[in-house]
Amino acid sequence: MSTLLIRNVTLNGCTTNILVSGNRFASLNADAAAQADEVYDASGQALVPSFFNTHTHASMTLLRGYADDLALFPWLNDHIWPFEAKMKAQDIYAGAKLAALEMIRSGTTWFCDMYWMAEETVRAVAEAGIRATVGVTLMDNLGEAEIKRQLDFLAGWKDPTNGRIRLAVAPHAVYTAGADLLVRCAQAARENGQTLTLHVSETEQEVADCIKAHGMSPVRWLDHLGVLDGNVIAAHVVHVDEEEADILKERGVWIAHNPCSNMKLSSGIFASDMLMKKGCRLTLGTDGTASNNNLDMREEMKFAALLAKTRYCSETLPAEEVMRWATRNGALAAGLDAGVIREGSLADGIFLDLENERLVPNFNLVSNWVYAADTRAIKSVLCDGRFVMKDGVVEGAEETIARARESVKAILSR
Amino acid sequence: MSTLLIRNVTLNGCTTNILVSGNRFASLNADAAAQADEVYDASGQALVPSFFNTHTHASMTLLRGYADDLALFPWLNDHIWPFEAKMKAQDIYAGAKLAALEMIRSGTTWFCDMYWMAEETVRAVAEAGIRATVGVTLMDNLGEAEIKRQLDFLAGWKDPTNGRIRLAVAPHAVYTAGADLLVRCAQAARENGQTLTLHVSETEQEVADCIKAHGMSPVRWLDHLGVLDGNVIAAHVVHVDEEEADILKERGVWIAHNPCSNMKLSSGIFASDMLMKKGCRLTLGTDGTASNNNLDMREEMKFAALLAKTRYCSETLPAEEVMRWATRNGALAAGLDAGVIREGSLADGIFLDLENERLVPNFNLVSNWVYAADTRAIKSVLCDGRFVMKDGVVEGAEETIARARESVKAILSR
Repeated sequence: MSTLLIRNVTLNGCTTNILVSGNRFASLNADAAAQADEVYDASGQALVPSFFNTHTHASMTLLRGYADDLALFPWLNDHIWPFEAKMKAQDIYAGAKLAALEMIRSGTTWFCDMYWMAEETVRAVAEAGIRATVGVTLMDNLGEAEIKRQLDFLAGWKDPTNGRIRLAVAPHAVYTAGADLLVRCAQAARENGQTLTLHVSETEQEVADCIKAHGMSPVRWLDHLGVLDGNVIAAHVVHVDEEEADILKERGVWIAHNPCSNMKLSSGIFASDMLMKKGCRLTLGTDGTASNNNLDMREEMKFAALLAKTRYCSETLPAEEVMRWATRNGALAAGLDAGVIREGSLADGIFLDLENERLVPNFNLVSNWVYAADTRAIKSVLCDGRFVMKDGVVEGAEETIARARESVKAILSR
Repeated sequence: MSTLLIRNVTLNGCTTNILVSGNRFASLNADAAAQADEVYDASGQALVPSFFNTHTHASMTLLRGYADDLALFPWLNDHIWPFEAKMKAQDIYAGAKLAALEMIRSGTTWFCDMYWMAEETVRAVAEAGIRATVGVTLMDNLGEAEIKRQLDFLAGWKDPTNGRIRLAVAPHAVYTAGADLLVRCAQAARENGQTLTLHVSETEQEVADCIKAHGMSPVRWLDHLGVLDGNVIAAHVVHVDEEEADILKERGVWIAHNPCSNMKLSSGIFASDMLMKKGCRLTLGTDGTASNNNLDMREEMKFAALLAKTRYCSETLPAEEVMRWATRNGALAAGLDAGVIREGSLADGIFLDLENERLVPNFNLVSNWVYAADTRAIKSVLCDGRFVMKDGVVEGAEETIARARESVKAILSR
């Protein structure tokens, strides 16, 4: 196993040396003179957990800024869907590569995706060196043959990397996947040992329609069908009452809060305080760039904390707690012992430049990171024991940007 | 007059050469071979207006992250005020220098300040090379001798720079400045040709207390006293009704919206849509780092736009409009022909790196800048015809950071 020695790094306010062996933190208090295959001098840098983004649509990064500031249906019908209809396999790949580049530069080492042609996203993530749980989207309107093909693909898939990539069963939402498909998805996820991820109660309309169609709200409907368990990542969950929060807590469902997307699309204000008091499992996601318009989990933490205080009071969702959602809780939702810097855990992390003026003064690094800094403070990013960004350099970045531009040009000319 | 030739820059989607003569844009379509004292190659960079931050407390940057996630009164009484009571002149200077460094790195070239010992902030801004309107804070509890001394200072002050710095008369708020002081401040501002800036209707408590004390809300009370006119910058203005919006519009008052601060301190949600429909003059401010915790106007634009959509609907406050608040409107509030890239205007601007992955694809640069990018996309910043940051370098940055750290250490040891 290859080893990496990180010298003179600041960890929880103290200077230390860290030894990484293979893809795990082997020692947080190593000898500065220890033998290692690679040595990284982290003087003036703090190591913090990397981000685990529990909800996004990576390849939609090609649609960044394509249409903004519109009502939901004209936005989808007249802009987003017509563009997406023209996307081919190479565009899915190009978009996912661009997304992975942006995630690396902003300190995200894992994401839960939901999109089409999962194999293209898998290829992009495998090359980029980060982690992902790639959702295979399922909807009734795909037709039985395609649904069958996708379920077979899910059942037979093998990770081409050394454990960095998994697949998820992703029935889109209760208004696009009927009872039969939802039950089949839940069964497939359990049989394959995969995550199930879907959109839940994102808008008032979705809740009203579900009650009209099934006589109960989306959370109750999903629970009624036996879909909800600890391997489910439910995205948005904006419109839920206390009884639904009890159900989500009881089943161990992971909730992916997407503050920027909910705010930009006027979906409503997430009930953070109520869900926290109920003991629900909370994580953070950026959603896709079409409705954000970035994949920046640092910014998402600030939006989550400030939106919570806007709805409730200043004490709601302190910096430490929202950072836990974005890091450790996300990793647990991913089924990974990561999102925390400790011996034995997976060696993912962000090196912050303590000379960045927005980390000065440094009364509280977590507060500075959540509320004050931006990604300019990131020097290097470690994933699975290897640098995916080192001293500001991500290998292949120029090629990724050029490919994304070419894809957009080709899509627009179709 | 010195000249600067900016070659191969992207302006509104086209590549051009720009000639700066002295402190103004002389030509936006200059000859690439024109003679100039300095040549800047802006290949792959777009020039956009710099930011004009209409409300902050620069020296409070020393309190970044000192206390967070607390209710308003424990936060002020137990943390902020005791710290501030120990700040000396050199700390005001050190804090303002740190703030100016952060503003330069995030593309702000002017700010409206409100704090103590204005001469120290003036000194810091003069050295940093940016612009400011430095508010001299006045409150009843200073006592008549000190109020008189400050009013004399305001009347007799001379700008030590070539027009970059002005002073403002800054009665703190209606709950700290009584009728007599407010009237004297308005008179001083008019006599000296200075801006008057103050906090207005930031919290529900402030409005309730004002009604109790004076039988009317803060806006009505200020108008009753004859304080409101087109040289007033009113900060926050969260809790106002339609009739008050009419008054603010009628008097030409500049409103400084501070979304991050209002959200973080749970002050309430700014009525952006109503104020826009009324035709009020709207600008953007960061407030101080103690309640934000940065001075990043790019981030503030995103918060303003998304908060507006949260309160109203997706179409509310489009990217172009919120960028106008943060740039041109702020410059007009400052009394400067700036905040816009056009011939004859003051030569302030931000050079954005179009190879930054968050500006890719580039369907709409304004949307990318407001919603997707962060300050990592900034290559250089121009103020008054001179580079205050060039290719990522701000002169004296290390010294400024070291001084800020020393100040904090000294304050804590007092």
